Amino acid sequence: MVLAILGGTGPEGSGLGLRWAAAGHRVIIGSRQAEKGMRVASELKELLPEGNISGSDNLSAVKAADIAVLTVPYSAQEGTLKHVGLALSGKLLVTVVAPTSTPKSRAWRLPSGKSAAEEAQETVGQDVRVVAAFQNIGAHNLKDLEYEMDCDVLVCGNNREDKKIVLDLCSDAGFRGVNCGALQNATVAEGLVSLLIAVNIIYKIKDAGIRITGI
Amino acid sequence: MVLAILGGTGPEGSGLGLRWAAAGHRVIIGSRQAEKGMRVASELKELLPEGNISGSDNLSAVKAADIAVLTVPYSAQEGTLKHVGLALSGKLLVTVVAPTSTPKSRAWRLPSGKSAAEEAQETVGQDVRVVAAFQNIGAHNLKDLEYEMDCDVLVCGNNREDKKIVLDLCSDAGFRGVNCGALQNATVAEGLVSLLIAVNIIYKIKDAGIRITGI
Repeated sequence: MVLAILGGTGPEGSGLGLRWAAAGHRVIIGSRQAEKGMRVASELKELLPEGNISGSDNLSAVKAADIAVLTVPYSAQEGTLKHVGLALSGKLLVTVVAPTSTPKSRAWRLPSGKSAAEEAQETVGQDVRVVAAFQNIGAHNLKDLEYEMDCDVLVCGNNREDKKIVLDLCSDAGFRGVNCGALQNATVAEGLVSLLIAVNIIYKIKDAGIRITGI
Repeated sequence: MVLAILGGTGPEGSGLGLRWAAAGHRVIIGSRQAEKGMRVASELKELLPEGNISGSDNLSAVKAADIAVLTVPYSAQEGTLKHVGLALSGKLLVTVVAPTSTPKSRAWRLPSGKSAAEEAQETVGQDVRVVAAFQNIGAHNLKDLEYEMDCDVLVCGNNREDKKIVLDLCSDAGFRGVNCGALQNATVAEGLVSLLIAVNIIYKIKDAGIRITGI
């Protein structure tokens, strides 16, 4: 599949992109500036010369892709989605966004009372198939392709077939994905990011994650 | 310690009570009707004859206790707290309440946008030390004292010493407690109840739980 990673120059987007490219997908690193996307793509190519990885601006990336993956900061979510606009129509949008910066990162609540994922769905409209995933993964070991992540990915969305695609993308990136129900439950997945930041601070660790047990 | 379990006749409250009694605490099973509290207490005494377990109405239970544990349904939270009122003053209130029934149990959000735990704090006022915990534990194996629960307890509260007491209560009940930061993060712990219900339904299992990794 062709994956456009919007805001893919950050550690999470580029790390996921590298893992997906290693799994055989074509990956386009999107950025507000095409040059920046191309630069990060060539850095990833150094790590994985056989990978099918390119860079471009966000809009061109979406146009060329089957699936768009949103890894921008929450503050850039609405602007980025409006910028790519109709190019998303009919496509699958995987949102990784977790709003952790307001008012402080270790406790979280959006003014809307909703998840960033539901806000994204409102921004893009019902033509776009939104699935939320990957919010809780630690970014800094993603580029070590041998590193086994001790963390599950919570996958929330309103369509079973779309979630199945994202669950496969979890496996391709080296994670166990867990189908966690409706898009509304992304509130919990996003809130966990702040809770795990609190755990990191309290226990003086770096990689607090979660596992679903009993499956 | 003396623990009053408000609404302690349900499976979660009575199961925790049994485990705490087995750990040497004095446990009072509180109920709206004293007779019902006493009946459940005697059932628990049959399982654990050496346990220091009694039953009473909720108000008498709080008056006799060091710590009150709230295990009523969300719909009864405000009424129960107002009923016991000033008897809670200065005491530690551990709230286990997760509002899962509105509008449906597999996706959750309170009209206030807050956690039930924060609403409880507002109801009882700042004289009462509120800590949220135990929302995510499966109730139906609690009374098997040999059963090892594959689930962590997320402990959220604004005071470190109070959380330390609750973390010890987690150990006493056979769980690993994890300090998860401020009371506001109880939003996540409560939301996880709905998310785990969704996981149970989707995977046709009964005991989905969570573990924090990386600690």
